[in-house]
Formats: sequence, C-alpha cells, structure tokens
Amino acid sequence: MTSTIPAVPEQMRASVLTAANELAIENRPVPVPDADQVLVAVAAVGVCGSDVHYYREGRIGDFVVDGPLVLGHELSGRIVAVGSGVDPARIGERVAVEPQRPCGRCEQCRAGRYNLCAYMEFYATPPIDGAFAGYVTIQSDFAHALPDSVSDSAGALLEPLSVGIAAIRKAHIVPGSSVLIAGAGPIGIITAQTARAFGASVIIVSDPIPERRERALAYGATRVIDPMTEDVVGLGVNAFIDASGNPRAVDSGIRAVGPAGYAVLVGLGSPTMTLPVEHIQNLEVSVTGIFRYTDTWPLAIHLVASGQVDLDALVTGEFGLDHVREALESDRDPASLKSIVHPNA
Amino acid sequence: MTSTIPAVPEQMRASVLTAANELAIENRPVPVPDADQVLVAVAAVGVCGSDVHYYREGRIGDFVVDGPLVLGHELSGRIVAVGSGVDPARIGERVAVEPQRPCGRCEQCRAGRYNLCAYMEFYATPPIDGAFAGYVTIQSDFAHALPDSVSDSAGALLEPLSVGIAAIRKAHIVPGSSVLIAGAGPIGIITAQTARAFGASVIIVSDPIPERRERALAYGATRVIDPMTEDVVGLGVNAFIDASGNPRAVDSGIRAVGPAGYAVLVGLGSPTMTLPVEHIQNLEVSVTGIFRYTDTWPLAIHLVASGQVDLDALVTGEFGLDHVREALESDRDPASLKSIVHPNA
Amino acid sequence: MTSTIPAVPEQMRASVLTAANELAIENRPVPVPDADQVLVAVAAVGVCGSDVHYYREGRIGDFVVDGPLVLGHELSGRIVAVGSGVDPARIGERVAVEPQRPCGRCEQCRAGRYNLCAYMEFYATPPIDGAFAGYVTIQSDFAHALPDSVSDSAGALLEPLSVGIAAIRKAHIVPGSSVLIAGAGPIGIITAQTARAFGASVIIVSDPIPERRERALAYGATRVIDPMTEDVVGLGVNAFIDASGNPRAVDSGIRAVGPAGYAVLVGLGSPTMTLPVEHIQNLEVSVTGIFRYTDTWPLAIHLVASGQVDLDALVTGEFGLDHVREALESDRDPASLKSIVHPNA
Amino acid sequence: MTSTIPAVPEQMRASVLTAANELAIENRPVPVPDADQVLVAVAAVGVCGSDVHYYREGRIGDFVVDGPLVLGHELSGRIVAVGSGVDPARIGERVAVEPQRPCGRCEQCRAGRYNLCAYMEFYATPPIDGAFAGYVTIQSDFAHALPDSVSDSAGALLEPLSVGIAAIRKAHIVPGSSVLIAGAGPIGIITAQTARAFGASVIIVSDPIPERRERALAYGATRVIDPMTEDVVGLGVNAFIDASGNPRAVDSGIRAVGPAGYAVLVGLGSPTMTLPVEHIQNLEVSVTGIFRYTDTWPLAIHLVASGQVDLDALVTGEFGLDHVREALESDRDPASLKSIVHPNA
Repeated sequence: MTSTIPAVPEQMRASVLTAANELAIENRPVPVPDADQVLVAVAAVGVCGSDVHYYREGRIGDFVVDGPLVLGHELSGRIVAVGSGVDPARIGERVAVEPQRPCGRCEQCRAGRYNLCAYMEFYATPPIDGAFAGYVTIQSDFAHALPDSVSDSAGALLEPLSVGIAAIRKAHIVPGSSVLIAGAGPIGIITAQTARAFGASVIIVSDPIPERRERALAYGATRVIDPMTEDVVGLGVNAFIDASGNPRAVDSGIRAVGPAGYAVLVGLGSPTMTLPVEHIQNLEVSVTGIFRYTDTWPLAIHLVASGQVDLDALVTGEFGLDHVREALESDRDPASLKSIVHPNA
Repeated sequence: MTSTIPAVPEQMRASVLTAANELAIENRPVPVPDADQVLVAVAAVGVCGSDVHYYREGRIGDFVVDGPLVLGHELSGRIVAVGSGVDPARIGERVAVEPQRPCGRCEQCRAGRYNLCAYMEFYATPPIDGAFAGYVTIQSDFAHALPDSVSDSAGALLEPLSVGIAAIRKAHIVPGSSVLIAGAGPIGIITAQTARAFGASVIIVSDPIPERRERALAYGATRVIDPMTEDVVGLGVNAFIDASGNPRAVDSGIRAVGPAGYAVLVGLGSPTMTLPVEHIQNLEVSVTGIFRYTDTWPLAIHLVASGQVDLDALVTGEFGLDHVREALESDRDPASLKSIVHPNA
Repeated sequence: MTSTIPAVPEQMRASVLTAANELAIENRPVPVPDADQVLVAVAAVGVCGSDVHYYREGRIGDFVVDGPLVLGHELSGRIVAVGSGVDPARIGERVAVEPQRPCGRCEQCRAGRYNLCAYMEFYATPPIDGAFAGYVTIQSDFAHALPDSVSDSAGALLEPLSVGIAAIRKAHIVPGSSVLIAGAGPIGIITAQTARAFGASVIIVSDPIPERRERALAYGATRVIDPMTEDVVGLGVNAFIDASGNPRAVDSGIRAVGPAGYAVLVGLGSPTMTLPVEHIQNLEVSVTGIFRYTDTWPLAIHLVASGQVDLDALVTGEFGLDHVREALESDRDPASLKSIVHPNA
Repeated sequence: MTSTIPAVPEQMRASVLTAANELAIENRPVPVPDADQVLVAVAAVGVCGSDVHYYREGRIGDFVVDGPLVLGHELSGRIVAVGSGVDPARIGERVAVEPQRPCGRCEQCRAGRYNLCAYMEFYATPPIDGAFAGYVTIQSDFAHALPDSVSDSAGALLEPLSVGIAAIRKAHIVPGSSVLIAGAGPIGIITAQTARAFGASVIIVSDPIPERRERALAYGATRVIDPMTEDVVGLGVNAFIDASGNPRAVDSGIRAVGPAGYAVLVGLGSPTMTLPVEHIQNLEVSVTGIFRYTDTWPLAIHLVASGQVDLDALVTGEFGLDHVREALESDRDPASLKSIVHPNA
C-alpha cells in the first residue's frame, strides 16, 4: 500500500531447472497478466519437498520435466501491475499467491472442488512455470491480500498451511477430537498447529527422530511417540493424518483409528501401499487423501494473523535467487525445516 | 395376526456346530424372552457366507468357535410370546429379525452408530447362538413387522438386503450416480438391485463367470464386465462397491473411481490388501467398509413390498433343519445363489 | 445431429415486454455468441409463473422491469453456431438450456453454489433477455445435449424439473422418506414425480382443488389431502415442500414435519410469513428455501429419458410467438397446467 | 476420589414448587438408584431461565406443573452410591450430571438424536423432579467425571455450556466463521465463548443494554452492537444465533445471514414469529432451533478444563436450599448473570 511502486522492467531473472540436478539463471521476459490477472513481484518462495523431488528426479509420478521448468509454488509478493479487468487500486498490495488456475467451468469446478479440476494449471508442475523468478502472474481472485502482521516468508508458507488445513478438514477435526499425525517435518508440524487451532484436544505426533519430536511438542503436539519403540495401534483416535509417506507409518496409523474415524494420507510415498483392510471394514474407518486445496487462504491468513499458527518460526534458511541449489539441498541438514528463496533480494 | 397361535413347547430342536465341519441336531430348552424381548418361532433362515466360513474353518478372523454354536442370522418368523415389557398384542405378528443387540448406551450407540457398539451381541457370532433352531429371542424393537406381501424367505433375506442398503448408503449413491460392483454373488446381486432402487443410472457389475454376469443383468446391472478380458480402471464411476473380497478386484475397482468418489469394501478377503494410494490421493477417493448396518429393516421391507427389490427369486434351495449341512454345502454348486433353512418345517 | 443446419439469419423475431401487460413483436439482431458460448435456435419455451408475474406486475420483489424485456427461461433448441472457443462439432445438437451465467470465480461459485453467485446473469431477469425469441446464446457448458427420446417441450420443462430436483435435494429425500407437498400446480406435480424418483415411500400432496388433487395422484402422490377439510399438522413427515406460496399452507406444513425433518419453501408468496417457531425448535426442524439450482440438468435428462418423470403430459397448451399473450394468460384456465411457446414454429 | 464417603441418609431436604410462586422445603426419601444408575449428592445447581419460568408461570408451553415439582437441572455433585449394574469404584467421583434419560431404543435414539427421544425423562420437567434437593439419581453413563480443575459451580454450568455447544454445532461454526449472537445473557455469553473456542473469527453480539455488551466483549465478542441504534441487516455473517427470544432480534438476525448461512433459534419467545421468508429463500438460509443436546459433556469439560471457556466468572450469586426463592428472583437484578444453589451447603 506504499506510494512508490517501482516501474516494471521488461526482463527478469529466473532460476530454471534444465535437467535433473541442473539449474541455470536465465533472463526472461516479465510475463504479461491476462485480463483477469495481476502481476506479482515475488518477495518470498518456500522450498517444498515436491520442488526437491523434481530437482533430483526430474519427475513426480506421471508428471515429467521434459523442458526447462521454473520451480517454486509457495509464494508471496506485491502486485505491481494488473490486467485490463482488474481494479488498478490493487497495485501495491502485498499478497499471498494461491498458485493454481482452475478452469471454473468443468464438473469438478462447478461442484466446488476446483482442486480436482481436470484442466488445472498449477505452478511448478510441467509445463507451468513456478515462482523462483522475479515476477509471476496469477488471476486476481487468487492473489490474497496480506495484512502487515504477516511477513513475506509467512505469506509464502500459507501454501503448506493450506495443505494442513485441507488435511484437517478432510480428517473432520472438531473441538475435542483426538488425532495422530505421522511425521514431524514441515507438513506434520504445520498440521499439528492447525489441529490445535481447530480445537483438537489430543494431538499425538510420531517421528523416529528425537529432535523432530521435540519440535512437535513446541508446535501443538500434546504427546509424541517414537514409532521405533512404541506402537500406535489401538490408540483409538478420531483421525490419523500421515505426513510421512512411510508405508509402515500409514499401516499402523490407520490401525490407530477408532470406530467411524478418518485417515487422511498427505505424504507422498509409493503409488501403492498395503493397508489394513479388515480394520477399515470392522471399524468403518474412512481412508482418503488430499490433492491441493480449495478455499484455504482466507482461513490461513486468519490463523497466522491471530497468532494461532506460527509460520515464521519454521524458517531455517533464506537464500537469494543465485542460491536456489543450496535451498533445494538444505533438506540434507536434519536441523533444516523450511528454506525460503527471495528472488528479488 | 391369525387367531390361533400354537402353544410354545419347552424344548426345541437346534442344528449345532460342534466343531469345524461337525453339525449335530440337539434338543434345547426354548429360550425365555427378557422383559424387552419377544420369542420368535423361526420360519426361514438364509445361509450366509459367514455361516459357511464358520462351518468350514471354525473361525472368522478373531472370532473363534470354541464351543457349540448355532449358526444362522438371516431370519424371519412369527412372534409366539413376549417379555413382560412388550405389548402382548404383538403375539402372532410375522416378523423379520434384525439379529443384533447393541447396548444402547455406549458412545457409538449414543452417536447413532449402534452397529459399532463395543458390547454388541450378534447372532451366530461366538458365543451368541443363531437361528438354525426352532425359536429365538430378540428385543421387540428389532422384530420388524412383515406385511403379507413379503414371504418368509424374503423376510429372512432382508438381512443381506440390509447389507446392500448399508453399502449403497456409504457409497453415497443418489439418483444419477454411476457405480461399479465387483462380484455377482448374492451380495453383489442384491447391491445392484439396491443401487437401482436408489436411482443409480449406471450400474456396472464385474464377475468372471458368465452365468453370474447374466444374472446381474436380470437384477439391475446396466452393463456387465468380465474382469479377465476387460479393464475397469479409468471408468471414472462415482462409486465402487466390492462384493468379491478379491484383492485384484478391489485394487482395480478403486482405480475405476473418479474424482471425489467412494469405494466401499463389503466382501471379506484378507486382513490386508495392497491399495492404489496414489489414485486415492490424486482423486481424493474415500475408501471405507461396512460393518453390519443401522436402521435398514424399514427401508428393506419397503423396497421388497413395493417390488423394487426381488428377494424370492434369489432362493435356489430350501432345506429342513436336518439338512443344514446340505444347505451349507450348496455353495459348491455354481448355480446356487441363496439357500434357505426352514427349522420348523 | 442432422446434416443440414439452416443458415443463421441476421435478424430474428422476439416477443418483448415493453410495460406491464404490454407485449410487442420486434425484429432484433440475432445475438453473437461469445468465445465460450453457443447460439441456439429456440424450439420450445415453457411459461413460468415468474414470466406471468413480470407480465402482470412489471416486477418481482426487487427485480423491476424498467426497459424492454424478453421473457422466457425454460427452453430447448438446437445449436446453430458456436463461439471461437467451442468445438464446431456441437453445431446441430439438440440441447436444453440451463438459463444462467454465473461468474465462476466468486466465493459462492468457488464453493460449488453457483446459483448464489452475486454476479449472476439469469434469463428473463432484468436486464437480461430471455427466450421468447428466435435465437439465444448460452455458454457451451450450460447447453445440455438432449437424447432423441426427450421432446422439445420436455427439454424446455427440464427447467422446472430442475427446481423440483433442487427442492428434493434440499429436503434430504432418500429411499423410504415421507414427504408432504403443498400445492398441485406445475411445480408441485413435478416435485411429486421427483420425490417418487428419489425413492420416497410416502408422498402426500395437499391442494384445495379436486381436479388438481386428482392429477397429483396420477403423478406420484400416494395420498392427497384437501387442506380445507383435513389437517396436516402432526403427520410427522420427514420433509415438507411448499409449492403453493400460501402462508397458511406453509405454517401447517412445517407443523407436519417430524423430529429433525426439513421444510423447503419453493413457492413465492409474501416477503415475510408467520412461522411456527416453537415447533421448529422443539423438533429441530430445518426450514430453508431454494434459489434456482446447481448441477441438475444431467439428472433431469436421465429422469425423463428413463421414464421416471413425465413432462410431456404436463403440456396443456402450445403457442406461436405471436400468441405469447395467450400463453401468459392461460393460467386463468384452471384446466391449464403448462403452456409452451414455439418461437420458430 | 477421597477415601471417606459420608453414609447416605434415608431422608433429604428438597425445595419443592407447589404452585406458581409457591416454594416449600420438604423432607423426602433419598432416591434409590436403578441398576444402571448412580446416586449423586448434589453440590451445585445453576438457576436457568426455564426454572424461573416454571416458578412464575407454572408452565412452559404444553408442559404444565400440576403437582409438586422440584426444579433445577444444571448440576454437579459426587457419587455416593451406585446401582447393581454400576462399578462401585465410581463411588466418590465428582461428576457433572447430564440431566436427561432417553429410552435408548426408539427411532430417534437409534439415529443418534437422543435429545429428540419421544420417551425422554428430563429433570425439572413435569412430572420429573430436578436437583434443588440433597440427592438425585442419574444413569451412570450420564454422570460425567469432573477433573479437579473444574469447580462445582462450573460443573453445574456445563449444562448451559452444552446448550451453547449444541447451538454452535447446528450453526456449523468452523475456524474462520463469522457469527452474530443476539442477546448477552448467560446463554449469549456462553455461546460467544463457545464460538471463539470453535475458531470463529468474527463474533458479533447485539444487546440493547450497555453493561451486557461490555460483558460480551470480555467473553469472546469481537464486536458488539446496540440494536436500538445500529442495524444488523446485511452483515452477511455465516451464522446467526438467537439467545434473546425477541421476535425483532430474530427477524433482523436472519436478515444478517449471508448466502447458504445458518440461523439457530435458541431463545424461547413466542410459539410463532414473523420471519423474513424471501431472504431465507433468496439466500438459501437454513433456519432451525435446538432442543437440549447430545454428546456435549465431554467437550464441555475439555473446554472448561483447558481454559477456553470460563464458567466460574459467570456466577453472580450463591444460595443455600432455604434461599431458592431468592435465587429464582435474582434475575430481576440486571447485574445478575448466573445464580447457583448449593443444596447441601
């Protein structure tokens, strides 16, 4: 909302994945917003496990990187230009970007499940470029205004918080619920905080690494479990959320769910897993997963602005655009939780 | 409703499973109804796969037959006596028995999920005796009055119809839904009929046996598939219901489900199965099972009385109490679909 | 799908409401479809009570006719041209038109409630023209292909059937439900048929006019009631649907609903009504209304094509474009149920 | 849990309503618990508006006091004896009493809606006696164990908190919801606190009395409105909860609800009210009420024990059994919020 918005240049720098493990800084034209879009100068971009996976493997399942791709889909920034159909008063707004463009017309969109849109264009998913770049475009409705109390980095991390919100909603967490979360990485920690904000009274986090269990206790867990030494089977929780992708954690986690409970698989592991079907049947447990999110940014902003979820504290490293490789490699450090890239820093 | 109710004897005959594959006719005292119960002279009892399983293996999962057990839990009959708290006007009523006695007070019961009652007493589940006997008792509320238009055999088969109704409800079938059903045995056929009654517009039944596929077409299927030669993956149905217990059918059936659809596992197979987790996640498919049923008899009676579901036509064999063994063995005949025992015939 | 599509002229005839009770035939340019739209040569248009209301009063509530307006929003036709973004293969298709254009981007649209879109453009609602004209445009997704078995008139009446479907969904009608419907006009009759298709086992229709009660019995009602002589209070039905707009019918209808049941107000009456709040509270009845519909045409087409709902039989008058006045006045004949205008006949 | 439980006497004192405005202390036999019940020595009883209403009018709607009646249904105490079917280890437990005895078997009970049980026995509702007495009986499952951190008075006030929870659930409040609450009396204040615990981000309380608005701000309201000077119509909240019983507040409150929102009428006013039907229809608002509660005590205890809801601070007066009249009259003091009777003090 400041008065001086810098002029938008014609060229910008972008960090481009040219092949597995190959990154290059390129000069590219600044994109031009469509009529319903805004142009955002990128302030902060979180590094996601999927970015790392594309970087290392060149693919995620059926999504294959077969041309140059800009990674990064967790981001905040400032609107610097708008399309012809957008109110110019938005120029200058600090925003968090919901990095998806559903068609708005297909059966899934019309039913309110735009995350399952068959025609989705999603940032940093081939062939759609992401946000490790100076500027990006997004339709105006998906550029969510940020209050001053939410930092650029927290604004970027509203994206993984949206994953946590989507998971908690699918898990039917309400005040008084009990929930088991497997995995105390970024998604597990954010999901624990979200569970607390949704009123869960019992929040158990399992992780084999002591430091990560410690961290979970600081961010909402009411109890932590080392799955190497303690069994979760039979806990009888209302919901299990997997944020590990580990097949053994998924199996035992589902067995931890009580009658008519829910299991939500968030972590990406293998395309198939052996699941405890008899337990699912005998207790009528519902098992499902989440695929992105719908309508989460307004709540995510509220949770952070009201202090119910702390995202800034999750940041363990910050990098410029010339150091995206280090940001992508930082997960090798067990003390690292969340790395942020500042493309225009 | 007739005027002459025969006097209730002190003794009755019962077909008792004494060990795996061992059946004996015993004379037993006629049970005495509790205050809230009625005494039912058994007219017809359907043979269920679970009866056959107990007969052959002496157990189902954790439920072990370690004493004499009377099998049979699909039944109709006539009320011949009532407990002290039941209106004597019920004597003479033809009834179908909902063969379960939940506690009515635990957390699951209070939440309306009495099928998941931790204190359930269920017919023909060790150590509770079932209905291959002259008389049984049941709480009055679970003895559902039968109209004249519903035969004794159909009255007995309201129990598997209740399974079908529970499955269709869990699968969220509404008018216009598409559903894939794996397995054209009794449950598959009944489920197909139920899907039709719930308004499903596309009802696909898969079964490797041609005769069973033929039968499915006669009972509601709009299309049949031979899974040996045709793949169901990618059908994009709203719901999949497994009535086969076959792991390959379950895996491919789940892959047949479209965005935000449901998979309901009814068939009993192995305690664990390898499931397509990536498909579940990417399309947010919900996978669950059913365990018995709640509040199904009134609807089941309506569906049969109104001609929307035909249960009589499923009966392929009828037996007296001295021939329970033949009834239990009849599943070896591929032309057999449903056997009925008439304990008092 | 025939091979010869007539050339699209530059001009068309339209029946225009110029003031209350004033209609004029005008020559107007044939509209040009936007990129995502199709041009439909109108075959049949049903006359709705709202058309009659605009014609007589010049307004409905806050919607005021303050310029020339083409009425008519229940329609079928044939695609004769397509916008630049639509597959030209659609030209020649017989279609039913869902006569609304939601924005697809606002909060309500994103949540799957596009009927509540704040930016809705709806046919025959000022200032948007309707279908008493030779040609109309509609976005391609809302031009629903008609099978040969559905007539032009039935195709037009899929719109009121959509109202019935929306009402039945809101009323939570499932197989075995009991429902009371007040009013045996077009919406009441269609709603009764829809209730039957959704499996309701008890369908009670109340109407003070004997002929209309007779008709209700022919179209799904299992019982009819003359509200002048018989009280519905205490029926204890699962749901009440008002299709009368009559405050007394609404009051007694809500009192007819049993514990945890639903009341859905479809009929337009006065902006406020005196409702039985104590009954609503003591039985936790949910009272709501419907505003248009979402995602109903595919089901409506299935219900008609499969013979579960008969729309052709409701047509009691057919008119050319020069006789729209007679069509709008036909409701004065108590034997009239539904009038159809054929603009190109 | 202490070791010394005082012997249970044969007689107890009770405050009995003998006619409107007539109270008398009587000696009565201590009740004997049924097999599934416990005997509770009453520690604290909250005074509810319905107690006051029975006291002043001798009736509430169809419920008429036509014999001596003990009032009081908000209570805590200590188990001093148990029925034959209850674990004697419960003797000594501090408990809050859920003051209702549903049948557990009827259609509503089986569906999980035991609050709507047609055979309900509810404390202080003719002819069932309440808790202004030394001892009461309750089935063991409805005597909810209290942690030490919850005081006797707070234990009693879990009952109005249960009303608040039931209202918030019906209003579909989730994190991020906006809600308008009319009336800042005890129920309004408790509901505001509950809304905050359920994550509502906007909690608007309207009340014409400045002191009550002040109090609302201290207990969860994010904004207060004086309905005499400011209009709530058009606020567009997700939910409206009436805790006033005032017809004008109900009318304007419903008009404050946005698209697809909820209105829950908790306050008891007149049996009928004039409601804004056009608004209900055009925005598809759902209007309903609550009648008691199901499954609320465990959550209520958690909310108080965790400090999310403060009940102790609502207590503005405490009385012995000889001063029940003063307790019932204390609502005439505008500074009074909640009075507590200690029958055994």
